[in-house]
Amino acid sequence: MTESVATRTPLSPTLRSTVTRYRGQRDATDRAALDAILDTATICHLGVLMHGAPAVIPTIYGRGGDTLYLHGSTGSGNLRAAMTGDVSVAVTLVDGIVYARSAMHFSMNYRSAVIHGRPTELTDHAERLHALRVIVEHAAPGAWDTVRPPTRKELAATTVLSLDLTEASVKTRTGDPSDDESDLTSTAWAGTLPLHQTFAPPIPSADLAPGIEIPTHVLSRR
Amino acid sequence: MTESVATRTPLSPTLRSTVTRYRGQRDATDRAALDAILDTATICHLGVLMHGAPAVIPTIYGRGGDTLYLHGSTGSGNLRAAMTGDVSVAVTLVDGIVYARSAMHFSMNYRSAVIHGRPTELTDHAERLHALRVIVEHAAPGAWDTVRPPTRKELAATTVLSLDLTEASVKTRTGDPSDDESDLTSTAWAGTLPLHQTFAPPIPSADLAPGIEIPTHVLSRR
Repeated sequence: MTESVATRTPLSPTLRSTVTRYRGQRDATDRAALDAILDTATICHLGVLMHGAPAVIPTIYGRGGDTLYLHGSTGSGNLRAAMTGDVSVAVTLVDGIVYARSAMHFSMNYRSAVIHGRPTELTDHAERLHALRVIVEHAAPGAWDTVRPPTRKELAATTVLSLDLTEASVKTRTGDPSDDESDLTSTAWAGTLPLHQTFAPPIPSADLAPGIEIPTHVLSRR
Repeated sequence: MTESVATRTPLSPTLRSTVTRYRGQRDATDRAALDAILDTATICHLGVLMHGAPAVIPTIYGRGGDTLYLHGSTGSGNLRAAMTGDVSVAVTLVDGIVYARSAMHFSMNYRSAVIHGRPTELTDHAERLHALRVIVEHAAPGAWDTVRPPTRKELAATTVLSLDLTEASVKTRTGDPSDDESDLTSTAWAGTLPLHQTFAPPIPSADLAPGIEIPTHVLSRR
């Protein structure tokens, strides 16, 4: 995966970036790109420091304004690590496989965001409820108001973290392979194979009470 | 995202696991599941320690036997960090959104692998070529033998790492939401919305020489 088509070794997977500080010198285009990636993707990968080593886990999240919300069980070691040290959160959308005429120019088209910072544990009841709503609505837009809200007991067992989006970077790659001029006469096929994430028809739960139709907020997802 | 439907707080996103040591006490089923996840996914998320903080980047990879291969530019700070310290590599396939009757039981269906270890830089020419072939063939099966192989100059600009799959864990969630008994009379819809990653028709590069057909190894991917 390449940072740009001008990169010397386009097969390079390293997307770690100069961290862009959006606060103060915010670029509206970049910020819109960041929000679009965060709002489109389903999960993030959260990196924390555990016993001196990095640990990466997939997790759901939600974005509210300039804040990324994460949550988990109070018993989670990863969440505890995220409360006491820096984290790195990566959100990646893979858009296609880039076929080149030479091995080292194979690449991916993608949209990627990485956020760095130190999360804050939310303790205020209203803030925690808001964050959980944002996370559930990110996973399942339109669902929160149709389901039973969290109980005090459920909330007591849940850690909710907020992470400022100030330190974030966006990387994307689009379009054709960037082959060397001398390879353009190759007989190898070159181009892109687009990848899409699509929803299949909803599957009602086996224990769903009779007569409950699939709601619009589920049926309309595309 | 939940480890299992029996977890107390099923909305919990933390999949970090007790690391399973496959060597010595290898479980064939688990190992097959690990290989299947690694061979099916397109990218991984590599976590390294950079200047005392975790840094996560998306990257392509390939699996050969008991080894995960990574590569990148020799100028990559992340790759240098991965050569000198422990890493955590997460590979995640999202299979669906799980709609529950209560907010805290929303979840995802997924297949996830996390590998921990200290990568080794490959220096042997044949080993490096093998690893790059594995990585390209993972991204684009059938492509390697049709394209120009790496030059000495390209190889000199490329770092290739191998990571043993000994310390790895697999987590999956499948099936219906695990609502509380007392919520089963809810009128909220409950079930799963499956997510699939699919290929769209290939797009030839704008500068593709005339008369080059899309090859079977591209057309046949599904």
